[in-house]
Amino acid sequence: MGKPITILYFDVISPYSWIAFESLLRYEKILPTTLQFRPVFLGGIMQGSGNKPPAMVPMKGAYMMKDLECNKKYWGINLNPPSDFVETIIKRGSLQAQRFLTVISQEKPEYLRPAALEFWHRVWSRDEPIHETQHIKEVCEKLKIPNADNLIAEIGTQKTKDILKKNTEEALASGAFGAPWIIVKREGKDDACFFGSDRLHLLCHELNTEFQGPLKSKL
Amino acid sequence: MGKPITILYFDVISPYSWIAFESLLRYEKILPTTLQFRPVFLGGIMQGSGNKPPAMVPMKGAYMMKDLECNKKYWGINLNPPSDFVETIIKRGSLQAQRFLTVISQEKPEYLRPAALEFWHRVWSRDEPIHETQHIKEVCEKLKIPNADNLIAEIGTQKTKDILKKNTEEALASGAFGAPWIIVKREGKDDACFFGSDRLHLLCHELNTEFQGPLKSKL
Repeated sequence: MGKPITILYFDVISPYSWIAFESLLRYEKILPTTLQFRPVFLGGIMQGSGNKPPAMVPMKGAYMMKDLECNKKYWGINLNPPSDFVETIIKRGSLQAQRFLTVISQEKPEYLRPAALEFWHRVWSRDEPIHETQHIKEVCEKLKIPNADNLIAEIGTQKTKDILKKNTEEALASGAFGAPWIIVKREGKDDACFFGSDRLHLLCHELNTEFQGPLKSKL
Repeated sequence: MGKPITILYFDVISPYSWIAFESLLRYEKILPTTLQFRPVFLGGIMQGSGNKPPAMVPMKGAYMMKDLECNKKYWGINLNPPSDFVETIIKRGSLQAQRFLTVISQEKPEYLRPAALEFWHRVWSRDEPIHETQHIKEVCEKLKIPNADNLIAEIGTQKTKDILKKNTEEALASGAFGAPWIIVKREGKDDACFFGSDRLHLLCHELNTEFQGPLKSKL
């Protein structure tokens, strides 16, 4: 029987995607599964599923900020909401960043993890923008990604748009209504799907592995 | 410094309230906090916060059923959705049961825990109704609650309605937008609030206690 595959569908606009991404990285050596990280466009998932972001219910929005603070302490991830939330998260969004990560996933997959993390550090830790080409260049420079200009030129191609759209539709088809969305694929079993960053204990249980807390020492 | 107080606001219509209730019972001896269980009317919380139940987004509803199945296995709680979900959960609801639990919380608080659990076992495990006086009588008989007729007669009093309303407004005022809603109160610190059944690791962390998984052996 092959090793199970676990796919995380993520968008760097989503702080819970960051928590899920980091926690899966920490559990990578413990979990008997091969991890794959797949960029999606969260706006497309919300629209396709008819779901609304938490900030649309004011009390959910207020709770989310406190909940992120608790998660920040628990996981030891330096999560800080952007100073202008509406401008950064709602208006500017992450489409360019997600398209760039799509290019990376095709052309330089070894940079996908650090590039995604660097986007999160920018927008959800250091209050830096990610929506213009210049910002994406800064990510490339910081990570010393070779051939960056050519990669950046691919952001706007139909091929890139189509792959991101395909990833997003794939998540929707499997039942996603937000991000992060995690699928565990195993031979001879139905896929197991998990929404959010708070199902790691259940994911571990599905893979017969003990949940061991935040594993802060692992990263 | 006094011992922290942890209040769980719950409604027996909510399966996630059951998970939170049971998991807090299992952690009661481990957590350095005094537990209180307070009935609320979930319909009132949804209305007061402008939130919508998950079943309003079809993909959320479908996910919830799978997620409950995972939680059932993880926690070892015999959760089974009622055969007629819309009739039982949406139409019949839990108002009478929550009012009865309000009476119990005032008159026979030692029966609050078993009575709440018995309601969950009826509606979310054995597919039995809870909306008529006869069903509440059956709960009293099963648990051998003394003076049941007098307690049941109090369900419809203004005093009972007012207390349930007060509990519900108290949860709303602290930021609730659904159930379960948990508040940790500590001297000299802001209250910590947790929504859902999936924040026990964060709640433990706030109380400097290690999350130890489902503790199936404890109940």
